Amino acid sequence: MIISTTISTHRQGLHEITRELQAIVQKEAESRDGLCTIFIQHTSASLLIQENADPAAQFDLEQWLNRMVPSNQPQFTHTAEGPDDMPSHIKAMLTETSLSIPVVDGRLALGTWQGIFLWEHRTRAHQRRLVIHLSF
Amino acid sequence: MIISTTISTHRQGLHEITRELQAIVQKEAESRDGLCTIFIQHTSASLLIQENADPAAQFDLEQWLNRMVPSNQPQFTHTAEGPDDMPSHIKAMLTETSLSIPVVDGRLALGTWQGIFLWEHRTRAHQRRLVIHLSF
Amino acid sequence: MIISTTISTHRQGLHEITRELQAIVQKEAESRDGLCTIFIQHTSASLLIQENADPAAQFDLEQWLNRMVPSNQPQFTHTAEGPDDMPSHIKAMLTETSLSIPVVDGRLALGTWQGIFLWEHRTRAHQRRLVIHLSF
Repeated sequence: MIISTTISTHRQGLHEITRELQAIVQKEAESRDGLCTIFIQHTSASLLIQENADPAAQFDLEQWLNRMVPSNQPQFTHTAEGPDDMPSHIKAMLTETSLSIPVVDGRLALGTWQGIFLWEHRTRAHQRRLVIHLSF
Repeated sequence: MIISTTISTHRQGLHEITRELQAIVQKEAESRDGLCTIFIQHTSASLLIQENADPAAQFDLEQWLNRMVPSNQPQFTHTAEGPDDMPSHIKAMLTETSLSIPVVDGRLALGTWQGIFLWEHRTRAHQRRLVIHLSF
Repeated sequence: MIISTTISTHRQGLHEITRELQAIVQKEAESRDGLCTIFIQHTSASLLIQENADPAAQFDLEQWLNRMVPSNQPQFTHTAEGPDDMPSHIKAMLTETSLSIPVVDGRLALGTWQGIFLWEHRTRAHQRRLVIHLSF
């Protein structure tokens, strides 16, 4: 089963989407077991499963990646779409374009501290399309 | 089909789990083709497929990642769980939370030099939960 | 369904394989929905979904990763297979060994600017084996 959805991002950073995804899965899965694959149709935003309990952890992840991939590197040649575009592609490369998560008893089988995030790497707000595949 | 299992890690580093996973898959798959997805329910440990022939390769992967993400970075704000916690989240971010591997003739279709590793990023021993999804 | 194929790489860098993979999927999927998992059976080459419109973006991705993981690092101990081998394992670690992509109406549901690349990390040409799993 395929479900398409769009997430609005407001700015660069981690946007938690666990609740939206659990709701989609629970509605379709009833109480079955299966597999959920979440795919983002973009190359300057990405997906990540990481700790969702302490906002400081998300802040540190964002800051670390910004230090690792700073904007305005003089070596970049793909600059037509702005100084935040090529760093966005690199940040997407270092994280995930798709996530596969087992579904157990009708729910995504996340660990206690795991949340699912859409990581907007561009500075401005965007509409990001997800394609979700569910099999039971 | 869902199978849950727990792996005991003894210290920070790569723990090979290829044999345990092949045994689980072979028992359930008989000689069928399919897909195996391995999901780790933690954010400070991760999964990796890498060369398992020469232990020096694993040593170099561990050392390179430790240099890339050193402990005790003064910028970190998520420090309540110890100096090895935030680096663990970043190391998990750079590697994998789930692996999807085709099953061919009842076995994980790994290449000649590929092994599956659970990467413990915390310094101390932990119990790490894996959720495995098999479809045929 | 399992399909095995081999890709010839000519040198280090990103080799786009979108067209070959779409052809395989379209032939088998007809107009069905499903999931495609692409697995590379190597540890010194990897897979990536990234922007395929502007070759400058691919050039910048390659150059950035080469700066991040230079050859001839004196700390490396796994050197028997040449100075480009250990950097190749690290570059594969930072990208993907498998990709899972939804199939919608008989086609890989890639976004407008997404292409699928096999990333050869060794300097010389290689034959790289892919195992593709399709379920409908």
